[in-house]
Parts: sequence; C-alpha cells; structure tokens
Amino acid sequence: EIRDQMIAAMNNEPSPTANNGPLAGKQLLITAGPTREAIDPVRYISNHSSGKMGFALAEAARLAGAMVTLVAGPVALQAHSDIKRIDVVSAEQMLKAVMSQVDKADVFISVAAVSDYRLTEVMDQKIKKNSTEMTLTLVRNPDILKSVADLPNRPFVVGFAAETENVEVHARGKLEKKALDMIAANHVGQADNPVFSSDTNALDVYWPADNGHEHIPSATKQSVAHSLLDIIGQQMSARKTT
Amino acid sequence: EIRDQMIAAMNNEPSPTANNGPLAGKQLLITAGPTREAIDPVRYISNHSSGKMGFALAEAARLAGAMVTLVAGPVALQAHSDIKRIDVVSAEQMLKAVMSQVDKADVFISVAAVSDYRLTEVMDQKIKKNSTEMTLTLVRNPDILKSVADLPNRPFVVGFAAETENVEVHARGKLEKKALDMIAANHVGQADNPVFSSDTNALDVYWPADNGHEHIPSATKQSVAHSLLDIIGQQMSARKTT
Repeated sequence: EIRDQMIAAMNNEPSPTANNGPLAGKQLLITAGPTREAIDPVRYISNHSSGKMGFALAEAARLAGAMVTLVAGPVALQAHSDIKRIDVVSAEQMLKAVMSQVDKADVFISVAAVSDYRLTEVMDQKIKKNSTEMTLTLVRNPDILKSVADLPNRPFVVGFAAETENVEVHARGKLEKKALDMIAANHVGQADNPVFSSDTNALDVYWPADNGHEHIPSATKQSVAHSLLDIIGQQMSARKTT
Repeated sequence: EIRDQMIAAMNNEPSPTANNGPLAGKQLLITAGPTREAIDPVRYISNHSSGKMGFALAEAARLAGAMVTLVAGPVALQAHSDIKRIDVVSAEQMLKAVMSQVDKADVFISVAAVSDYRLTEVMDQKIKKNSTEMTLTLVRNPDILKSVADLPNRPFVVGFAAETENVEVHARGKLEKKALDMIAANHVGQADNPVFSSDTNALDVYWPADNGHEHIPSATKQSVAHSLLDIIGQQMSARKTT
C-alpha cells in the first residue's frame, strides 16, 4: 500500500523528461465518460462509464507536456485548468465537438463509452405508462472513432474496447475493421464487474505492426494512463523512423 | 441571497419544536433517486433524478424528530448517520427494500423516480452492435407506491409526480387512482428543465379532503422539504381529529 502511494505520488508529478518526451508539445484530443441518449425529457439510456480512465489519460498527457483537449460526457469529475474541456451529453454532440477539434490533433484517444444507439424519435413529453409493454426503436449512432480514422489527414488514432468475452479477438477485429493505430482493451466480465467505477484498471494494448501487444497489469488508472501514453509515444516514434 | 443563506442556516438546525411536532417520534420511510434497469452488463436505462429532494426530505424529517429510513437509488449523496440508508439499483430491488421496512412505517414518502419499465430480458453479454436498428422490449415494473397504498395496514402515503403538462389533472388523477393520502407535483417542463439537478424546487401539494391544495413556492430543496413535512403533519393531525 505504501508502494502504491509512492507510485501515485510519483505519477502526480511531471517527470524530469516531461518536456522532451515523445508527447511533449503534441496536441492530444481525448474523449471520456458515457454519453446519454434521451428517451423523453425524463428518461435516458446510458452506460456505467465513470470517465475516470479518460480523465486520468488527459491528466497524464498534460504532465507529459502535451496540450490536451478533453471532450467529456456527463461525469462528476474535475479536470486541470490547463486542459481544454468541452462538455457534451449525447453521441451526436460528442461527434460534433470532436470534429471541431480534430484538425489540430496529433493524437486522438477515444476513451468515451459512446452509446452505440439512440432513439429513433425523442418524445417531447414524458411518456405515459399506459401499456404493460413498451417498445423502444433505436438506430445506430455515428461511430466517432471511425469518423476520425477515416479522415484524410488523421491523427494517431487510439481506440478503447470494453469486452465481456474473447477480448483479443474482438479488440483486434475492431483494430483492423476501423484501421486504428492502436487499441486498448478492458475485460469487463460480468454485470457486477468493478472496472467502470473502480480506481484501478488493467489493459491489453494491441497495434498492427508485428502483431504488437503489451499487457498493462492492474494498477491505479493514473498509473495505467502513464503506461499507455508511453506505449503510444513509442509506437509514434517507431513509425516515424520506418 | 443573504436572506436565502439565513433561511438555509435556520433550516439546517432543528427547530425548538422538533421534539413535540407532529412527526416527532414517527417512523418515516422515504425513497429517493432514480433506479437503473440493466440492458446488458454495460448499458442501462435511467432518468435524471439527482436524489436531492428525497435526501432533503429525509434530513428535514430527522431534524423534525422522526426516525428515518431512506431507500436510495444510485446517487452521489451523503445521508446523516442517524438515517438508516438502504442502497438499491433497480426498481425490483427498491420494492423489496421498501416492503421489508414498511410494516413499522407511520409515513411513506415515495420521492424516487422509479423506472416505469425494465427490459424483458437482460443480456448476460454486452450486445454487439451488428445491426443498424435495435429494438428493446420493456415490461412494466412493479408500482412501489401502489403496492404500499394497497397494504391493509398502510402508513400515511405520499406520492411525488413529475409532470410535463396538465400538472393538476395528472397529479389528482394519480392521487385518486392509487388512493394516496397526498401527492406533491413538480412541473418539469421541457428537456432542459433544471428541476432534476437543481438545488431549488417548487411543489404543488394535493390531498383528497375538501379538494385540498397548497402551493410551495420555489425555494431550496431543504426549505421545500420542511414545508412539505409541515403539510403532511397538519393533514395527519387533521385526520386523527375527524
């Protein structure tokens, strides 16, 4: 526990190499938190994302000397005043915010748990509960990660995947299908899995070159964020020299 | 603003009559916050209830000398240690908790914004987004308020109604249909209405005798809670003497 506290203390201070590491001076665009899709003025569909991993990455990137823009869904978290924060609610709002900021980004990290579907029609009035059954018809939301990956002059694109089974197969599938530069996968297990509200996390990181893979063992989200940024920095540098 | 602060300060202290008011020594059972209905391990349906009104009522009741049990959905709020708090997630869990506590209750106040519907089937695995459309089939949740009102030896039953239109008609309809002793109605207006996250609120309170109605003007939720408890105490006393 003392060791954890020491690591946490270390992680909260910029390292001596902050200003000459591979991310120093880079523009990082990060999404975090859930999105909410309105059913009516009262009800919505959302997910268990707390935003902690995305906020930890934004903070770690700031400490690594990057200039950070954070597009955040509805979460109860604070960001450092040097981080440019844009608050959104729905997936469509998040897409719009990302697209307005992506031109200047060197790296895009999509950590937000974007609602995959939204209601075909949002009710103006609260739905009355007259019937014993109700059917909600949902349509796919825009795929923000793919929208960025499809841009002609795209940044280095990192996706996140929360998988309940066959983590590597699903993560590599997403990596290829969306032509990402890197993907970081959580194994979220069952309904009571604590990843979402937890302060700790473990990640498996995959990238295309040489079937690249690195495992970041369970640690504080702050510590995991630093490790992931190190891997991103390494792969960006490796790419430049090839 | 100074006046508001003074009122708030006054409201946070027990009044001199705390121990001989109509609620002193009474058992109050209060529900608060939203409930969440799982779609799969990651996604859920919920609503914008912050729990602030229910928590304010629990605290005001404590200050009025009542013994308070608070059944709370997922919210980021603290309750006084003298309040017996039971945390739940879904409507079915909330019903179970309420039914386990209701026998000893003198007053039941249903402030929680209980999800009216839940999924017919909760997925064990995260739903894959293969199709462009998705249909969710929902069934009605148990009606916790009506379940309590239907009990043979029921407490004094107070409901809450969040209405977007025709507030009095809908509120009185609910009062009659569920045979409540009292109903407190919010006018939540449109999608961007601040009632849910707001620290202030206004209520219209209706009860059956003499078509009773009292308006509690917009004030802090603490202040509104005290006013509502006063009305509850008055109506309970009035009933005893008739």
